[in-house]
Amino acid sequence: MNVNLHGRTRHFRTVTFDARHNAVLLIEQRFLPHEFQVVAARDFRQTARAIQDMIVRGAGAIGATAAYGLAQGARAFRARGLGAFQRHVEAVCETLEAARPTAVDPLNAINHVRQAMRAGQTVSEQQVLALAAAEEFANNDVRHCKDIGRHGAGLVRNGMNILTHCNAGWLAFVDVGSATAPLYAAQAQGRKFHVYCGETRPRSQGATLTAWELTQQRIPHSIIADSAAGHLMQRGQIDLVIVGSDRTLGRTGEVANKIGTYTKAVLARRHGIPFYVAIPLSTIDWKLKSGLEIPIEERHESEVLGAWGVAANPQSTTRIPKSAKRVYVRVANPTSEAVNPGFDVTPAELITGIITPTGILKPRELWPRRRELGCTS
Amino acid sequence: MNVNLHGRTRHFRTVTFDARHNAVLLIEQRFLPHEFQVVAARDFRQTARAIQDMIVRGAGAIGATAAYGLAQGARAFRARGLGAFQRHVEAVCETLEAARPTAVDPLNAINHVRQAMRAGQTVSEQQVLALAAAEEFANNDVRHCKDIGRHGAGLVRNGMNILTHCNAGWLAFVDVGSATAPLYAAQAQGRKFHVYCGETRPRSQGATLTAWELTQQRIPHSIIADSAAGHLMQRGQIDLVIVGSDRTLGRTGEVANKIGTYTKAVLARRHGIPFYVAIPLSTIDWKLKSGLEIPIEERHESEVLGAWGVAANPQSTTRIPKSAKRVYVRVANPTSEAVNPGFDVTPAELITGIITPTGILKPRELWPRRRELGCTS
Repeated sequence: MNVNLHGRTRHFRTVTFDARHNAVLLIEQRFLPHEFQVVAARDFRQTARAIQDMIVRGAGAIGATAAYGLAQGARAFRARGLGAFQRHVEAVCETLEAARPTAVDPLNAINHVRQAMRAGQTVSEQQVLALAAAEEFANNDVRHCKDIGRHGAGLVRNGMNILTHCNAGWLAFVDVGSATAPLYAAQAQGRKFHVYCGETRPRSQGATLTAWELTQQRIPHSIIADSAAGHLMQRGQIDLVIVGSDRTLGRTGEVANKIGTYTKAVLARRHGIPFYVAIPLSTIDWKLKSGLEIPIEERHESEVLGAWGVAANPQSTTRIPKSAKRVYVRVANPTSEAVNPGFDVTPAELITGIITPTGILKPRELWPRRRELGCTS
Repeated sequence: MNVNLHGRTRHFRTVTFDARHNAVLLIEQRFLPHEFQVVAARDFRQTARAIQDMIVRGAGAIGATAAYGLAQGARAFRARGLGAFQRHVEAVCETLEAARPTAVDPLNAINHVRQAMRAGQTVSEQQVLALAAAEEFANNDVRHCKDIGRHGAGLVRNGMNILTHCNAGWLAFVDVGSATAPLYAAQAQGRKFHVYCGETRPRSQGATLTAWELTQQRIPHSIIADSAAGHLMQRGQIDLVIVGSDRTLGRTGEVANKIGTYTKAVLARRHGIPFYVAIPLSTIDWKLKSGLEIPIEERHESEVLGAWGVAANPQSTTRIPKSAKRVYVRVANPTSEAVNPGFDVTPAELITGIITPTGILKPRELWPRRRELGCTS
């Protein structure tokens, strides 16, 4: 999507490949929203480290990064012999897979590229096929997000106030994003609306990443404390909620997503406000039979006990020098502890609809339609 | 309540009077939780400034501070003549009333002291009566909080997990607090329980002040992101919610309190968890006929866009040097704006009971019992 640099608007993808230099180009997400920078991972080890160090994050984005990383590793092979090449590719895959062991998207991406490589008879053919497959994987991610936008755009009407939570935007994918896709599509169709970005404590992805995305895209928005959503709904100031999902259970329609999603769903139900979840198909888990089986990651307490930001004057916070470094400040009482569940599970009954690349479905419609949604088990 | 200093436990009130030095002694709340300090306001102007500068905050605490400030001002009168004394007292009152013009407690406190002074025939008699009335006002505040504790302690049972929001603790009163009173009373009765302190973004009074209070009182507790309460309730990890109130409507039972209170009440209702509001009688507004009439203060956006804390290592955040200064960091995207409603209104139907100094009432019982609750209109 768009990034405004030095007064000009340029289009970027979160992840791209520079074939001439055999480099994976990544938006350095750890410096956002305070600094925009594109970094080059110059070999597959650097690409793996970029995933590990969270230079790139988000399901779709790390999937594409792993796909490109495999092509990059394959293309760097300089020795002779198909056997040696295959051992090299094996090592590349292991390195990339180890970078984020709990995520499923890099595994899918690596399988996709390896599958395509099998059609090649020579090292050189396999190298060409690897890059083509990686580009295809990235383009598929973009296409699926655009399909989500196409199906979801109709939900966004002129004058609406729309609540989002966390960041399921283009930074988490190759482009467009999932929860943001209907917004960007509606904007492209000329509709005017306003977005409330829930700040999404403790890591504040709403206040940092989503707010940054919407600014670049020139979509009017305001950041709110997570606690303010209920009050705004009560006063009739929210018309629609759209969030993303880390895992959606195909059998039950339950949605695991960033902590606080469940609260927004409960509030939306009380106020009769439609609550939608936007997902690429890769997010659907066809195996688990209950949301209670989803492991809820307990994250480090420092996230709740403090905050990351750049030192600033609270009265004129927009003027932050380019050189400003992000620092951690302890907010909470120094001797108290925190409990920090990273995700929660929203039951199907609270979800108005799930916006998929194939259309908007009721949560309970996922299972009967599992074949067309790509369930192979 | 207790404060642990250099390995010893000492009892403090938030506000006391040093008659020998004619000084109002205040816990410096702006440095908490990182530093505990008692400061002396040496004349009524300093006392007024301490209210204005938020050295002392919280309804009960600023009421007592104003009462002591008036006694302090009256006692400092060195000239002759009852007429001159009365003009001096008038000026003292005006200074103290101007310190926090929207608050009702300082006005009540000042009226209480002036009323008592009328019984004195001489300057000296009125000076003595002023201090006695200020002490009476402060002691009444403590007694009312203890009464809240006495009535509410039975709600707190062994092994319970109790959720609080914001700080309605002893720092907001002269001692004991409102929402914390049932906890402290239950602890005194030997009961064991655990408290979840909602961090209460954007000003984080739960993570800072309530967590500090509970630490000093050695009550086991954990800080949580405001968004985590719903998940914990869903998993059966919260048994009771107790919050305070900034204004409770006597006619309808609606409760205005820190932003996020309404969300907790909605979640508690969904999960069948009892939701109590603890209030001193001075918090009841007998005039307004609807919660929609309560003005909701829109606070400065910098509160939402960043956070105040002390620079620290996130991996070992308990070791913060004494000399550490609080700094403001900008967390959010530098060019985004925020909306920051400071309070919300919880309807009577979501409130299990209101814990008052005279007993636990249903929200709708306030109006029929208004005479015994001190409604004079």
